[in-house]
Amino acid sequence: MIYMNILIVGLGLIGGAYASILSKYHNVYGTDLDINAINYAKNKNFIIDGSVDPKNYILKSDLIILSIFPKAIIDFLNKYKDLFNSNQVITDVCGVKSKYILEATNISKPAYYLAHHPMSGSEKNGIENYNSFSFKGKNFIITTVEDNAPTRAIDMIKQIGIDLEMNVSICDYKKHDQMIAYTSDLTHAVAVSLMNSNRDPKLIDFAGRSFLEMTRIANINESLWSEIFIENRDYLLEEINIFINEMHKMKNALENNDDKKLKELFLSSTKIRKEM
Amino acid sequence: MIYMNILIVGLGLIGGAYASILSKYHNVYGTDLDINAINYAKNKNFIIDGSVDPKNYILKSDLIILSIFPKAIIDFLNKYKDLFNSNQVITDVCGVKSKYILEATNISKPAYYLAHHPMSGSEKNGIENYNSFSFKGKNFIITTVEDNAPTRAIDMIKQIGIDLEMNVSICDYKKHDQMIAYTSDLTHAVAVSLMNSNRDPKLIDFAGRSFLEMTRIANINESLWSEIFIENRDYLLEEINIFINEMHKMKNALENNDDKKLKELFLSSTKIRKEM
Repeated sequence: MIYMNILIVGLGLIGGAYASILSKYHNVYGTDLDINAINYAKNKNFIIDGSVDPKNYILKSDLIILSIFPKAIIDFLNKYKDLFNSNQVITDVCGVKSKYILEATNISKPAYYLAHHPMSGSEKNGIENYNSFSFKGKNFIITTVEDNAPTRAIDMIKQIGIDLEMNVSICDYKKHDQMIAYTSDLTHAVAVSLMNSNRDPKLIDFAGRSFLEMTRIANINESLWSEIFIENRDYLLEEINIFINEMHKMKNALENNDDKKLKELFLSSTKIRKEM
Repeated sequence: MIYMNILIVGLGLIGGAYASILSKYHNVYGTDLDINAINYAKNKNFIIDGSVDPKNYILKSDLIILSIFPKAIIDFLNKYKDLFNSNQVITDVCGVKSKYILEATNISKPAYYLAHHPMSGSEKNGIENYNSFSFKGKNFIITTVEDNAPTRAIDMIKQIGIDLEMNVSICDYKKHDQMIAYTSDLTHAVAVSLMNSNRDPKLIDFAGRSFLEMTRIANINESLWSEIFIENRDYLLEEINIFINEMHKMKNALENNDDKKLKELFLSSTKIRKEM
């Protein structure tokens, strides 16, 4: 167990949920543009202290967790870079890394930038919904920009994943974004397209468990997900192409009444699913 | 409540499960090519009596339930058609109707043929697995070949759905096959193709709840489902084309960074899902 002084930047839903848990194990400070969020965190004892001005807390923190959007990350780092020192680690919680992570890494020096992604979703906002967020048992991915990231930095971020009771793994940031394009973005694109393929008013009379499960996430927050899709656009387009190609394999097999090829496709998916 | 003399033809998994429930409310007889299945049903009191020769039971039955494959349905009807009378109703439990239902309807005269589909699945076989089958709360669709099916026949088949505690609805058989191609066949095709789109051994580190749900049925019985796909081939091909077209809409929106179009697709799927 590593004991740390932590500054959480951005006391929204995720920052607030982090503070509510990490404050049990560490000294947690908080900053936000909204004084009400800071007061809420103070009153709940999620933070020892907090202010809209983060200077004092930056100076005494071992770890700075940026729970803000990519654009705000770059702004924050540029504004406070003169306060960073070589013992510090800076991390963020964003779901897609490619667009800003190299820039963030450079600005942060001499501090070490090591991002991560807690794979848990919610469509709620604001620190007051902190306990609607569940991390336990879900995936927590540390995203590296180089093969030989310092052990100390990795151990510090790992500790956060352990405190949140998540499954910690480590992965190159490009690979991370590509895999997320597949397991999360493509998965939502497929559910939405499946739902949009039929608008019969009597649908429910024909729906079984599989169909209900396959379309659950077709009920989707349009603002949040159009942003997520466009953020990870290039990798998602690659995954969509691969998937459409798989659908064409299925279609061709069926057109040719090729029962052997159909079985091959089913056996393949069964194997991958079982191994997973 | 209609009280009936019922003959169940085919004491396999579904026939056995039907017998186990319907015997509580009706006089149930059974026939099968396998004497062991008949003895099992007798010993469990699922049937009053049974034999590999169905003649006597056909003569005293109000309702004949064919729980056998389409080809066997036609063979059975041809073999025993001289024993049918105009007070009888004959039904079957197959998942796809188009290929044999008109022929079955014609052979069965003067008895009235009115098929149905209990939407519950299992990959097990045999009467001994009868209680692994759950009907309660699931969809039970009566499939008509004409708009004005006799009320008496509809009421008799409805009674079976009620006895099984299922949600009963009525629908033209072509419409039924088309909807099943969408909610069941296409849904499985999509799950299989999604799973086959990526074979990374570290998949599980990136899998969230949505991805696990969306790929659950990619673990699929290849013999059963290649048969089901080819049986409903024409409707399924139509549904695959519509779905691929929806995926292209998503792809084009993303290629053009068309955030407005993406939101439109998300709002549409959300609306359909909520209405369902």
